[in-house]
Amino acid sequence: MDYSDYTFSLPMSVRDYEIDYQGIVNNANYLHYLEHTRHEFCRQAGLSFGEMHSRGIDPVLAHISIDYRQPLHIGDEFVSCLNIGRRGPKFYFQQDIYLPDGTPVIKAMITVACIENGHLTRGDVLAQAFGKYLKTI
Amino acid sequence: MDYSDYTFSLPMSVRDYEIDYQGIVNNANYLHYLEHTRHEFCRQAGLSFGEMHSRGIDPVLAHISIDYRQPLHIGDEFVSCLNIGRRGPKFYFQQDIYLPDGTPVIKAMITVACIENGHLTRGDVLAQAFGKYLKTI
Amino acid sequence: MDYSDYTFSLPMSVRDYEIDYQGIVNNANYLHYLEHTRHEFCRQAGLSFGEMHSRGIDPVLAHISIDYRQPLHIGDEFVSCLNIGRRGPKFYFQQDIYLPDGTPVIKAMITVACIENGHLTRGDVLAQAFGKYLKTI
Amino acid sequence: MDYSDYTFSLPMSVRDYEIDYQGIVNNANYLHYLEHTRHEFCRQAGLSFGEMHSRGIDPVLAHISIDYRQPLHIGDEFVSCLNIGRRGPKFYFQQDIYLPDGTPVIKAMITVACIENGHLTRGDVLAQAFGKYLKTI
Repeated sequence: MDYSDYTFSLPMSVRDYEIDYQGIVNNANYLHYLEHTRHEFCRQAGLSFGEMHSRGIDPVLAHISIDYRQPLHIGDEFVSCLNIGRRGPKFYFQQDIYLPDGTPVIKAMITVACIENGHLTRGDVLAQAFGKYLKTI
Repeated sequence: MDYSDYTFSLPMSVRDYEIDYQGIVNNANYLHYLEHTRHEFCRQAGLSFGEMHSRGIDPVLAHISIDYRQPLHIGDEFVSCLNIGRRGPKFYFQQDIYLPDGTPVIKAMITVACIENGHLTRGDVLAQAFGKYLKTI
Repeated sequence: MDYSDYTFSLPMSVRDYEIDYQGIVNNANYLHYLEHTRHEFCRQAGLSFGEMHSRGIDPVLAHISIDYRQPLHIGDEFVSCLNIGRRGPKFYFQQDIYLPDGTPVIKAMITVACIENGHLTRGDVLAQAFGKYLKTI
Repeated sequence: MDYSDYTFSLPMSVRDYEIDYQGIVNNANYLHYLEHTRHEFCRQAGLSFGEMHSRGIDPVLAHISIDYRQPLHIGDEFVSCLNIGRRGPKFYFQQDIYLPDGTPVIKAMITVACIENGHLTRGDVLAQAFGKYLKTI
């Protein structure tokens, strides 16, 4: 499959401990995959969440909306893809996960707000760091 | 606070290992809270997920939408509330979490589909088991 | 069963998301149970890990030794028991988990050291807080 | 560092969600790292845990002993190393984790027993699959 519609894509694989009694990846673990993908994108783009945190800046989730299309199973590999946009003080991460053959696993929209020293901000530090990646989504 | 608008409510408390480096409950753990609440509701209503699974019936998530309003911190107690509805083959869980003083923590809508021996079903087993709890939501 | 040989005991139950693909509680989750039990003991004894952390004191694991006797399954209830001892700067938590009928699930010995502002301490704050509970173990 | 004393080594890195309120990787997550390393070793050696499970064979933990030497922090990379041995029906995994500069993070000995269709076995299937890797440990 071609992931060129996305700004960032990360190949990952299911770890056996992420499978639950139903024999599929537990629903909460997708949020780990999505968080890890956002954090890897930011780290590779030059500003890690660890650094932001030590500067007193904490991006936090405001809203998530996830379509679960196809469950992941033991041994599965997958690709976790991301676009980033901004509207006002909020950042939007369009995050989709695919099987290697292109079958969609989840389709997600993650809304993030920026807290600085306990207060909501306009997100200017993030906008500066990630400005060149921002898309209309 | 009065939780009488909800069919089911479960008092819970944050476990320290659920807190992440930002000093708040990690976003994925709310899905654990919500899952545990649905499963406790079903168990107390007479049909546990364990039993369903051993009969070949597996309710799985189709969609989630969550508003994160107020993060939970170390030591926090909270109440996890639930209403259940049905439209066609899908079940809708309105799931809201509150601090003991009534402050909303998250507001969620969880859509569940029923898989029986690998195939999507009309959910009649669940509808029979939980029929008397179904609301218009 | 009689838990009077233990200083503290906490009734708990398995949450469905803690079960893995083998149909038993994943081995890592027992460390969550044990941590939660230690933290609940400390909280009820008057000094929570949250408070210790905000004072710059962080008890951390130095060593663990766990016998896995009997796996926990979906729907299981259990009792998590604890004794605490001290030798030099280290604290020892004897932590055993039982099924309600007294069958041992795990037998563990957890060794904890105290870090204060980044340095190993003699653990005097903990010894003062938990002194009356210390046993020879 | 030279990892040639080990049969298998796996480069990994800390994911931010594995950090807890103390700013270090939560103690339970090391069991995830160790499990993932064992499972990757087995998969690469030709017999995955998923396959074993579908044949009715489930290796389960009998005992673990872990020395926590140096905590992992946000952003850390590490190498997870493994040797495997056998005494009677039990398999022994010597599992050590290092920072890239060779500083030991944890030193662990993991004892595994084999359950086949609910009964303890002599582990012959594993011994056959992993025989050429067995060391005296």
